[in-house]
Amino acid sequence: MNVAIIGIGLIGGSMAMALREKKIASKIIGVDANEMHRQKAIELGLVDEVTDLEKAIKESDLIVLCVPVGAAESILSAILLQVKKQVIMDVGSTKSSIAQIAGQHEKGRRFVATHPMWGTEFSGPSAAVSGAFIDKAVVICNKENSDSDALEQVEKIYRQLGMHIIYMDSTAHDVHAAYISHISHITSFALANTVLEKEKEDDAIFELASGGFESTVRLAKSNPDMWVPILMQNKENVLDVLNEHISQLRKFKSCLEKENFEYLAELIQNANTINRILK
Amino acid sequence: MNVAIIGIGLIGGSMAMALREKKIASKIIGVDANEMHRQKAIELGLVDEVTDLEKAIKESDLIVLCVPVGAAESILSAILLQVKKQVIMDVGSTKSSIAQIAGQHEKGRRFVATHPMWGTEFSGPSAAVSGAFIDKAVVICNKENSDSDALEQVEKIYRQLGMHIIYMDSTAHDVHAAYISHISHITSFALANTVLEKEKEDDAIFELASGGFESTVRLAKSNPDMWVPILMQNKENVLDVLNEHISQLRKFKSCLEKENFEYLAELIQNANTINRILK
Repeated sequence: MNVAIIGIGLIGGSMAMALREKKIASKIIGVDANEMHRQKAIELGLVDEVTDLEKAIKESDLIVLCVPVGAAESILSAILLQVKKQVIMDVGSTKSSIAQIAGQHEKGRRFVATHPMWGTEFSGPSAAVSGAFIDKAVVICNKENSDSDALEQVEKIYRQLGMHIIYMDSTAHDVHAAYISHISHITSFALANTVLEKEKEDDAIFELASGGFESTVRLAKSNPDMWVPILMQNKENVLDVLNEHISQLRKFKSCLEKENFEYLAELIQNANTINRILK
Repeated sequence: MNVAIIGIGLIGGSMAMALREKKIASKIIGVDANEMHRQKAIELGLVDEVTDLEKAIKESDLIVLCVPVGAAESILSAILLQVKKQVIMDVGSTKSSIAQIAGQHEKGRRFVATHPMWGTEFSGPSAAVSGAFIDKAVVICNKENSDSDALEQVEKIYRQLGMHIIYMDSTAHDVHAAYISHISHITSFALANTVLEKEKEDDAIFELASGGFESTVRLAKSNPDMWVPILMQNKENVLDVLNEHISQLRKFKSCLEKENFEYLAELIQNANTINRILK
């Protein structure tokens, strides 16, 4: 089938690779507002051609929306005004807002709201990687709001990509995403800024950086064009988690100030139990 | 030469492997307060024999102190009372306190204060790995306080292990370590506790955990027996960094509360500059 990828960046580019590798797409049409991304996507062979949104929709059986979540809503509206029998899916990190947009459109049942749980701190078509989605989870939200043929097609595609499907209400998704992904990005951004603040005073500090630091600060390289809209759209949930996180940090602060060794050990022992949850 | 490893855990065990692989040690004698660790170290072939501290010191040319930093001070005192021509080095994550202890002993110049910048979130002899120190940095503190032959021997060993030596005052080391290592552990512990707190309400949350979460929370598996003494010994520096970190997190909170998109993008762009520092 013909697939249109709207937004050929990290996720869109990796999705294009996966759809081609699994022989799901016979032709891939790319749409991107960024001229350099369009050129790069052709150069890397991620897409067969690039064109405008209107033409891409007309020529496609499946439309995969991979732009940052702020832009995704208005583009989805534009797509839904044009679409006939095609299936549209998105891959965004927030789901309540886009699910609501789809609900307001006559053709909204052609849309399937999804979130493949994969990403890296890099962005743009050059960041696309082969085999990205294999053995990862994907969330499909509010499946009762999609036409059954559209849902089945999207489910089939994700299974062919080797993904494990989790079904969830879009509101629950956004709460969970705040805890499991959005807060990790904020702590990593803030940690980078903490250390960079210190570096102004003393640039020898990074000579000591080792694996542990790199691991906790890795996500701080993530692109603001992607993350500002995610954090803003999910602001209520993110603020809840951020408040909880600051209060957890204050417990460590209080232990150190009061030299409360026992409680500090308890806090760390509790943190250690994360082990049973991580692979 | 004969080497005594005092504390055969993650670092001591990995050091034993490295010293043997590089043919620096002809015989390795292990000392550990934990009977299971002693057995495991023999079973894994990390050490040739296990014995008590007094006998180990007598039979060794080099003594490598690899116990948690709280215990290291009193054991160093005991060693310095017995030592003759031997060289003693430690590998602890804090350096001011142990450097001070050495300074109070007649034989204190036989001691070289070091901190190899390598570790993992695991602990005990089973966590020891081969090739751990290659291409990593090691800090040697207050080198002017060590006998020149002791310093030269330690420098030579670290070079043979493939490490890059950085010289630093113990006070400066502890400030840098707070920024580059200790705060990463606290943020990771606190992040784990934040998410575990949420999990009490909803255990579906971890189905969504992906690579980004695992990366930021990895250090939360670290052992309290190692980390309580480190954080306590370096409490003043750690509190400084923790206060800065909480104030950086509050900036994110304020952006979200006020819907200040522009400042949020600026904070993230600033965090992105960490990129030029990480490899």
